[in-house]
Amino acid sequence: MTRPIRMVDVGAKGATLRQAIAKVELHADPKVIAAIRDGKLPKGEAIAAAQIAGIQAAKKTAELIPLCHPLQVTHVDVDCHPDGSKVIIVTKVTARESTGVEMEALVAASTTALTLYDMTKSLDRGMRITNLCLLEKSGGRSGTWKRSKP
Amino acid sequence: MTRPIRMVDVGAKGATLRQAIAKVELHADPKVIAAIRDGKLPKGEAIAAAQIAGIQAAKKTAELIPLCHPLQVTHVDVDCHPDGSKVIIVTKVTARESTGVEMEALVAASTTALTLYDMTKSLDRGMRITNLCLLEKSGGRSGTWKRSKP
Amino acid sequence: MTRPIRMVDVGAKGATLRQAIAKVELHADPKVIAAIRDGKLPKGEAIAAAQIAGIQAAKKTAELIPLCHPLQVTHVDVDCHPDGSKVIIVTKVTARESTGVEMEALVAASTTALTLYDMTKSLDRGMRITNLCLLEKSGGRSGTWKRSKP
Amino acid sequence: MTRPIRMVDVGAKGATLRQAIAKVELHADPKVIAAIRDGKLPKGEAIAAAQIAGIQAAKKTAELIPLCHPLQVTHVDVDCHPDGSKVIIVTKVTARESTGVEMEALVAASTTALTLYDMTKSLDRGMRITNLCLLEKSGGRSGTWKRSKP
Amino acid sequence: MTRPIRMVDVGAKGATLRQAIAKVELHADPKVIAAIRDGKLPKGEAIAAAQIAGIQAAKKTAELIPLCHPLQVTHVDVDCHPDGSKVIIVTKVTARESTGVEMEALVAASTTALTLYDMTKSLDRGMRITNLCLLEKSGGRSGTWKRSKP
Amino acid sequence: MTRPIRMVDVGAKGATLRQAIAKVELHADPKVIAAIRDGKLPKGEAIAAAQIAGIQAAKKTAELIPLCHPLQVTHVDVDCHPDGSKVIIVTKVTARESTGVEMEALVAASTTALTLYDMTKSLDRGMRITNLCLLEKSGGRSGTWKRSKP
Repeated sequence: MTRPIRMVDVGAKGATLRQAIAKVELHADPKVIAAIRDGKLPKGEAIAAAQIAGIQAAKKTAELIPLCHPLQVTHVDVDCHPDGSKVIIVTKVTARESTGVEMEALVAASTTALTLYDMTKSLDRGMRITNLCLLEKSGGRSGTWKRSKP
Repeated sequence: MTRPIRMVDVGAKGATLRQAIAKVELHADPKVIAAIRDGKLPKGEAIAAAQIAGIQAAKKTAELIPLCHPLQVTHVDVDCHPDGSKVIIVTKVTARESTGVEMEALVAASTTALTLYDMTKSLDRGMRITNLCLLEKSGGRSGTWKRSKP
Repeated sequence: MTRPIRMVDVGAKGATLRQAIAKVELHADPKVIAAIRDGKLPKGEAIAAAQIAGIQAAKKTAELIPLCHPLQVTHVDVDCHPDGSKVIIVTKVTARESTGVEMEALVAASTTALTLYDMTKSLDRGMRITNLCLLEKSGGRSGTWKRSKP
Repeated sequence: MTRPIRMVDVGAKGATLRQAIAKVELHADPKVIAAIRDGKLPKGEAIAAAQIAGIQAAKKTAELIPLCHPLQVTHVDVDCHPDGSKVIIVTKVTARESTGVEMEALVAASTTALTLYDMTKSLDRGMRITNLCLLEKSGGRSGTWKRSKP
Repeated sequence: MTRPIRMVDVGAKGATLRQAIAKVELHADPKVIAAIRDGKLPKGEAIAAAQIAGIQAAKKTAELIPLCHPLQVTHVDVDCHPDGSKVIIVTKVTARESTGVEMEALVAASTTALTLYDMTKSLDRGMRITNLCLLEKSGGRSGTWKRSKP
Repeated sequence: MTRPIRMVDVGAKGATLRQAIAKVELHADPKVIAAIRDGKLPKGEAIAAAQIAGIQAAKKTAELIPLCHPLQVTHVDVDCHPDGSKVIIVTKVTARESTGVEMEALVAASTTALTLYDMTKSLDRGMRITNLCLLEKSGGRSGTWKRSKP
């Protein structure tokens, strides 16, 4: 029989300030990246739409990822840097909780990139969303962790 | 003033059978990939959990991506292939609709990968989710499109 | 390896009018049942609250049950019959779809009963929700089915 | 006993193209309206955020309004006109369905106004959201209806 | 470039008891208001349905309003006063949080009014939802605020 | 007029560790139960799917049951014991909150059973979900309660 699926019990852990920073890249034709940067897309201002989608998705993390605990995020920040043939997206999430916010930061980054993709897909079907990873986390028993090479 | 944000009007388009296939990779330490493959993770059977999360997320696409139209998917298929230092995830979505299902396939792939990440993150914080892209789409006015190099 | 989880593909099936009728019972102390019937509960009019919760839950079925297809219900009806030491709840759901609505009727019945439970639980912790089952289904290739002994 | 709550059965009605136009006003200090218009708010570009919130809310109408049928909107359009001491918000929703889309247009208008309120509430707590009403509806058995004095 | 959209960081603020009271009016034909008051509507007991919709919407505020923080409301109260040609709706929300609950009270009021509208719209298409505003807020650094003329 | 619907105010109660254990049974043909146990179902590994559905539903309790307060569960555990002609499902939920988690445990149990039903309904339409009840609760002012005969 398969191993049963189990949520980690965080009831005995105290709440501390948690932070996580994640990153992802959207790779596309440089003309598409310029259109994103300049707000010249047929569907409208893509960066604002993508930031909001990322913030909203961070709040939905426990609904999307089955074993995530419901958290009350105190801050979500989504930055989009269009540059050449890519947009670099960096998300930062904080919460005072008994478990970390890595998944919230990763879900925000991923959804921001997917929203940019949706708003530009009529221009370039070959786009790629790539290098989604955690850059840094802090708070909690395991302390601060930083990615060695981003 | 910024360009207003607009949903594409698909009211005049007829419904046809649409299909999209997407792909993503989770890169991790080979021991983590082996633990995923063999169902030996502390949180339990990761591939089943990730498949379900991917299927559920496909159904939530219009809630996550602001300008997506609500669709009734008729099929969502999520395959996870653990191999060496990565898991390759391939998703296939179909629907009889007046707009395509690319975003549904991409959202399913991304959420499947994020769920595998969540179930293994205590073993390897440096994992990356990468190369999320569309492999193929068919149906609708623009016809069939296939990625030249997957 | 475990058998992969798969949504049934309903893309090739035509839409027909589907109906399903489900039933469930809430068993409690007769005084609790009388308070439900007479609208004398501290939290207020329980049957109206429970009917609405059941209707709302039917619309959420595909979000709750992983392999259910998203459907557009055209009607949800929830009846509550308080009688002696139980409330009998009967739900009826219809939709013009390519798959049946049994799960919608069962989810509506179950959520109606749970809402009545929530509104009365301070009076009787020992209540039971029991005999949740399908009474009848019609429409679709498999035709009409009726439960032999309800 | 109170009258039972009932969803209208729309199973026998054919699908036709439905449209509804709704309107609402946000009244505030002219300095607040100017800050909205010029994108000078501490929380950022308010009109883009409010448009997206309105579009997303239209898609959630059946989740918010208990007896609404789940619909597949084919288009949602949200316009915000800042002018003097108010922002006039006009929403337009279309769908090919067997029931109207008035509630979707009203929910979109209301949520757009509430989002503008949220993004400016630190500047003026006395703001009012007012005159939320239907301007026009078309499609369906009852034909076209237009408000006599908007 | 447009100003980026940012959630306020409330991580450094302590939790205190917050309360907000909001109000809205539904204006309609006096016969419609009487039918609401007397529970004589075709869709059933409208005030109970609208109260539940308002309570449920308060809990969904962070999902509807993009920059709202997820909160745990400890109480939501919705009162509907049918009177002449209007229903006055007053909502009260409390929570022990590091940010206020004004938006929760306003969202509850707005959704209650929209639900009454939905349950009566077949009788009077010209109804208006008007004067949605905050009456009072307390708790938090900025202290108590009361509307000068409701 | 009917009694108004009211959420209990839990703002003045302190947070304590709460736990609830619930149970439900799915009764079906022994061949169906064996297929669940052995993972031989057409839709795939049913117990993993049902466990995840139960965990996800526990997190959605306040969305499903109108007067439930939103809670942050710290642990949800779902066990499925296939045996002869039934599967016994036991759920355990914990949270540090000012109100109990009985409804979360019951909603998890009910949704787990409904998911098993969905994955096997093509084999046996006559299945029953029965004896959903609370086994035990602890924490809070009313102390520990245990069911006398499970």
